[in-house]
Amino acid sequence: MTPYAAPVTGPAPDPLRSRSDAVLPLRFARSVAAAEGAMLRTEDFPGWLAGRQRAQAITVRRIPFADLAGWSFERSTGNLVHRSGRFFTVEGLHVRTGEGVCPEWQQPIIKQPEIGILGILVKEFDGVLHFLMQAKMEPGNPNLLQLSPTVQATRSNYTKVHRGADVKYLEYFTQPSRGRALADVLQSEHGSWFYRKSNRNMIVETDEDPPLYEDFCWLTLGQIGELLRQDNVVNMDSRSVLACAPVGGERPWALHSDTELLSWFTAERSRHEVRADPIPLADVRGWVRGEEAIDHAQGRHFKVVAVDVAAASREVASWTQPLIEPHGLGVTAFLVRRIGDVPHVLAHARVEGGFLDTVELGPTVQYTPGNYAHLPPGHRPPFLDFVVSADPARIQYEAVHSEEGGRFLHAESRYLLIEVDETEVSLDPPPGYCWVTRGQLGELVRHGHYVNVQARTLLACLSAVPVQWRETR
Amino acid sequence: MTPYAAPVTGPAPDPLRSRSDAVLPLRFARSVAAAEGAMLRTEDFPGWLAGRQRAQAITVRRIPFADLAGWSFERSTGNLVHRSGRFFTVEGLHVRTGEGVCPEWQQPIIKQPEIGILGILVKEFDGVLHFLMQAKMEPGNPNLLQLSPTVQATRSNYTKVHRGADVKYLEYFTQPSRGRALADVLQSEHGSWFYRKSNRNMIVETDEDPPLYEDFCWLTLGQIGELLRQDNVVNMDSRSVLACAPVGGERPWALHSDTELLSWFTAERSRHEVRADPIPLADVRGWVRGEEAIDHAQGRHFKVVAVDVAAASREVASWTQPLIEPHGLGVTAFLVRRIGDVPHVLAHARVEGGFLDTVELGPTVQYTPGNYAHLPPGHRPPFLDFVVSADPARIQYEAVHSEEGGRFLHAESRYLLIEVDETEVSLDPPPGYCWVTRGQLGELVRHGHYVNVQARTLLACLSAVPVQWRETR
Repeated sequence: MTPYAAPVTGPAPDPLRSRSDAVLPLRFARSVAAAEGAMLRTEDFPGWLAGRQRAQAITVRRIPFADLAGWSFERSTGNLVHRSGRFFTVEGLHVRTGEGVCPEWQQPIIKQPEIGILGILVKEFDGVLHFLMQAKMEPGNPNLLQLSPTVQATRSNYTKVHRGADVKYLEYFTQPSRGRALADVLQSEHGSWFYRKSNRNMIVETDEDPPLYEDFCWLTLGQIGELLRQDNVVNMDSRSVLACAPVGGERPWALHSDTELLSWFTAERSRHEVRADPIPLADVRGWVRGEEAIDHAQGRHFKVVAVDVAAASREVASWTQPLIEPHGLGVTAFLVRRIGDVPHVLAHARVEGGFLDTVELGPTVQYTPGNYAHLPPGHRPPFLDFVVSADPARIQYEAVHSEEGGRFLHAESRYLLIEVDETEVSLDPPPGYCWVTRGQLGELVRHGHYVNVQARTLLACLSAVPVQWRETR
Repeated sequence: MTPYAAPVTGPAPDPLRSRSDAVLPLRFARSVAAAEGAMLRTEDFPGWLAGRQRAQAITVRRIPFADLAGWSFERSTGNLVHRSGRFFTVEGLHVRTGEGVCPEWQQPIIKQPEIGILGILVKEFDGVLHFLMQAKMEPGNPNLLQLSPTVQATRSNYTKVHRGADVKYLEYFTQPSRGRALADVLQSEHGSWFYRKSNRNMIVETDEDPPLYEDFCWLTLGQIGELLRQDNVVNMDSRSVLACAPVGGERPWALHSDTELLSWFTAERSRHEVRADPIPLADVRGWVRGEEAIDHAQGRHFKVVAVDVAAASREVASWTQPLIEPHGLGVTAFLVRRIGDVPHVLAHARVEGGFLDTVELGPTVQYTPGNYAHLPPGHRPPFLDFVVSADPARIQYEAVHSEEGGRFLHAESRYLLIEVDETEVSLDPPPGYCWVTRGQLGELVRHGHYVNVQARTLLACLSAVPVQWRETR
């Protein structure tokens, strides 16, 4: 009656292969479960990191814009540009959303249209996947040195615009024959600070025996998960890439089917009419350019500043550059609720002016409270007050992480997973919010422009940190 | 040793549900197999369509731009705009790709930033899914009347900017409680003619008994598949929506795993540096504006023209509007090859200036041959000459379809599926091309900006037409 053939199983006929790798999630799960590594012992990590900290000593000093070398405000536009025309620029953006407490605004924004590579090389040692992490200094990190992916390269980096040293291990990410991609996806970065920026997030497995350079170490996902519980150790790029790991293990059930979830997301993207137009930096209203900073007139959001970096072991020895410096510590949290015994997080379809496509899924709460302190309680963002005043007993995960230290200065946020129950948040949350499982986020994050960078940090924590709501226990 | 729990099967605990619906592909397959419908008999369809043709008689007349009502060339930019500020505008675009035979060009382009709804309502009759299709006149269709989705509405339509009649059945697509979404995704439209246009493609199932208005009919996928074999019956919007149907039935094998395919696609999107900047229409170089058309200086590609439409049964009685009129019949083809007994199509990662994100997967060949006739053979697009001179015995599907008749005038293309073997195209095709299965395209088309509108037409044909390479036979 029907031509439908049930899926055929068994080995694939030559030269075909299985469309999905059923064993891979098991291999990731084994690495999550490995609290100890075959290479660098967990107890030796702090000493190793401290050694790298000494070896890479740098100084970061705020300077006036006039002291930037190679950077200047373009005469016709006021944009802050590098004389090479590469790296990035600071320009203006005019955003109109027609909704919410701020339906229209202008702001400075970083424009960097090139696609960088954020790649982690993985390899099995003693039957367990290990991740090659790099101790990397970035001028904007509050503690300067954090663990970055194996490769963290802008196109300028690897096309050698700044004539620096070679990027180590880059060939594993640019030559498909050198390894096997386990994840490879273009993901957005901060839509409030970057105009349509995306980077290629890659996890590549190798069977070769790559050399181990001194700033690098092999760690299991279990070891990295433990480091994710500490403040400011695992950098943003690492968290973003780790979020893309196909960890699997999810239940086949959820409050909403995958098709329902996609339909809700499509409706959210359709109902917002966002217009974001680049404008000259000189034309941006509500911001003031001084000798040392471009400030928001009311002192909210962020400022643009300049720094001088003197370093020994980076691709180039020293340099100057602009950075974006946010005001105040951010609060970034997923509310988590067990529904039918399966943990769900409350995702928020967030508009950010710099997104390529209107909205992406963000955490339940992603704000800097100070930016909203002037508003009466009823006008503050949903769930913000709830999160800020959460009972400590309900906080299942908490750590301070910082955003990309190559562009943002001391951009720190408290990342939280907070348990709620049916008396606090219903199954039918306010418009723009939806309960989703970790497995569903994991499926969406295989594709670009669904899960924003802050939600990816929390997804990495959900996947790598053995918190009580992991679906696999 | 590992915390991984094998996927649990069985009924989902309340209030959860299965993330995927295993029965749905079977229901679609049954509809594909149903050559006869429970409502409108196949033999009665031509008479029904002819009746609609008579009832909706319209006349379309070319007019000079000066005779457009409500439309004019804006003084400062030369853009062709409507006085309401809605509908769409014709502006200019400056595209720089830095590659190929034409690394940089300027062109007129349609800008319509709002998201429209293309929705097909489905319902089971006698246990078989039927699709509610509409006989709809569009001024640009060569035969004026074609089968459109149940709802084909711009935001202007349903917010009543042109004060027309209500859009029938719209509530099923705007009120989630009225039906169940089987597919719901934002898909791109023509990247060569539209600037970053996307529409919401929806398939919604209802259990209600909606009234049947006279321009509508219920058809099975088998009946629609038969109509897809005919020239200019099923309109572009219908084909685009049908391509999103979760028909299932694919094999679990392919030449490349899904992750490999995503990795290849990510690399393709990363390696192209496309810059597409809107410019005033008056500044577009290489095009000439006359009284009745904006023409390409060498007479290639397309022209912008204006028409007067006098109609009886559309949302408004008559109107004038600009249209894009391409030069010559296009050729749009997938090469198809059985690999390990599973049919694969040769997808092309295509750059189009109007795409939101650089490249999408298009057919193997998607060109108007006349645009390349002036080039020496070695400089013509890959596979174009092969397709144009294909042995008729190898053509497994061929029909002429037209593109959206509300924006494009007589924009026809020959759509082809052409069988090849290992002596003609290898498993390792040229850069920018990749062998993928229908099942893989079906998975990608659940998400936006992967599969372009021409590839979606061919995907609809692969899914609904019982050609010999359907994976389910």
